[in-house]
Amino acid sequence: MRALFYDGELRLIEDYPRPTPPPGEALVRVKLAGICNTDLEIVRGYMGFRGVLGHEFVGVVESCEDEGLVGRRVVGEINASCGQCEYCRAGMPTHCPHRTTLGICGRDGAFAEYLTLPTRNLHPVPEDMPDEVAVFTEPLAAALEVTEQVHVRPTDRVVVLGDGKLGLLVAQVLGLTGCDLLAVGHHAEKLAILARRGIETALESEAPRLEADVVVDCTGRPAGFATAKRMLRPRGRLVLKSTYHGRAEVDLTSLVVDEVVLIGSRCGPFDAALRLLGRGLIDVQSLIGAVYPLAEGLAAFEKAAERGMLKVLLRTGD
Amino acid sequence: MRALFYDGELRLIEDYPRPTPPPGEALVRVKLAGICNTDLEIVRGYMGFRGVLGHEFVGVVESCEDEGLVGRRVVGEINASCGQCEYCRAGMPTHCPHRTTLGICGRDGAFAEYLTLPTRNLHPVPEDMPDEVAVFTEPLAAALEVTEQVHVRPTDRVVVLGDGKLGLLVAQVLGLTGCDLLAVGHHAEKLAILARRGIETALESEAPRLEADVVVDCTGRPAGFATAKRMLRPRGRLVLKSTYHGRAEVDLTSLVVDEVVLIGSRCGPFDAALRLLGRGLIDVQSLIGAVYPLAEGLAAFEKAAERGMLKVLLRTGD
Repeated sequence: MRALFYDGELRLIEDYPRPTPPPGEALVRVKLAGICNTDLEIVRGYMGFRGVLGHEFVGVVESCEDEGLVGRRVVGEINASCGQCEYCRAGMPTHCPHRTTLGICGRDGAFAEYLTLPTRNLHPVPEDMPDEVAVFTEPLAAALEVTEQVHVRPTDRVVVLGDGKLGLLVAQVLGLTGCDLLAVGHHAEKLAILARRGIETALESEAPRLEADVVVDCTGRPAGFATAKRMLRPRGRLVLKSTYHGRAEVDLTSLVVDEVVLIGSRCGPFDAALRLLGRGLIDVQSLIGAVYPLAEGLAAFEKAAERGMLKVLLRTGD
Repeated sequence: MRALFYDGELRLIEDYPRPTPPPGEALVRVKLAGICNTDLEIVRGYMGFRGVLGHEFVGVVESCEDEGLVGRRVVGEINASCGQCEYCRAGMPTHCPHRTTLGICGRDGAFAEYLTLPTRNLHPVPEDMPDEVAVFTEPLAAALEVTEQVHVRPTDRVVVLGDGKLGLLVAQVLGLTGCDLLAVGHHAEKLAILARRGIETALESEAPRLEADVVVDCTGRPAGFATAKRMLRPRGRLVLKSTYHGRAEVDLTSLVVDEVVLIGSRCGPFDAALRLLGRGLIDVQSLIGAVYPLAEGLAAFEKAAERGMLKVLLRTGD
């Protein structure tokens, strides 16, 4: 099968072996997949991953032990956990130390014609939801992990830092709380997507001085942390969504002096993401920057790496 | 001026004295007001109130010390606090022990041609927001007090009990969190308003057995408490929005055995309510059951008291 493979160099392989699902796993034919900043970071060395890239997808179940799922359109949670360890037993499977992660760690990903995932990771997609919407389930779930972890009150002053793909989703989720929200970024045309939804926006160079109750760093850059800290009030909550290759230099003392609460935030709830998409409350169509066939995956990666680019999708099977 | 007055009997008075605002207060010409269940409860003896009823309104500032507000369309927070006591100084003015409350306690209300409120209680209404939307600011703020007080997670299983006017607003606010939400009521046609927004609904007689993380009692009836408790998991959170005249018989031991957290919830944030209305995220138009001129206020109250009736509005100055 065709697959986009990384082993220190990103390559399109035409005859990559089609995976055979082990017991408990399903074979999924990928229809549409999304390129995430994490994919771009992997190509820069993040996670030391070798294999087929990609973890955001919608596809059709070709085979699995649950016959009711065969032929169904699905999205899939990306962490394959052991189900046995203390973390799994405590209801924290995304923190299982034995986990593999689709297209990120120890498991081939979604930029291919087929993938496998544990059947329990799959979520059927409502029939009336287009592929171009469903493919945003995984990043929207990651955005919802912010409100899963942090009580954002309708009266909180909140800043979302970063107008990348994840930042635009996080800002939309936080806008639904009624909070006094400011989205800060570098690209007027991307901030305009939020402004159309009644969300206040500012270019970072023109952002007002303020002392927010909550700041969410979605910049994807080490420098985002310090910017977020400057916008936070004493005893405020700083949510970190950015993952990147390498280390950041951080003023830890200021966190102690100001008694800041820092919350690292990763994968989130798929069911809730599908519900919000089903209710039409999140504009994802505006977040699509380009669609490429998988056969042009290398060009798609170049496009996705352009400064200010929105979500680049890869269509399989055309 | 014309006013709807209660002193043990509800009466329409044509020559009620127009109020003169004391220092710090504004004179507001009422445009549109809403009848709340609390008004119906007052007529049943709740709060022992005597005076002009009504606390949900939109109007125009006729005079006040802040000249920038004169001529502006406004809504108003209903609690007039002293600003001096320990509660006011701690940022809890709605809990000021010296407060008066518009049309509820010690202060004439909004079912009249004019009212007065402290200028600091007023919130200008965006120019493009119709009166029929703005008049819902106060009850929507009360609905938002739930998410102000309680962290409702996108993965929480939540039940809203009661499909009255407040229940329909609370369910819409909670639907915005992405939570797994069930709205339970007695009127299929009112639950349909929520179903159209993708919210799962059930008649109380047909409600599934479940153990919810959060149950919000908006029934307005003492019996709602026990129903809510039955739907809650151990260590769950039970939010009480119902206020009514008289006492309720409650199984307090079950709260101790099951370690339930009980949260009484009242007035909420106006700024956040105006933002959600401005973002078009709450369907209030569907909640309007009837509109009467103030001159027909007695008929409006009879209409509002009909079983299953939606919001009855009173238009002033026609």
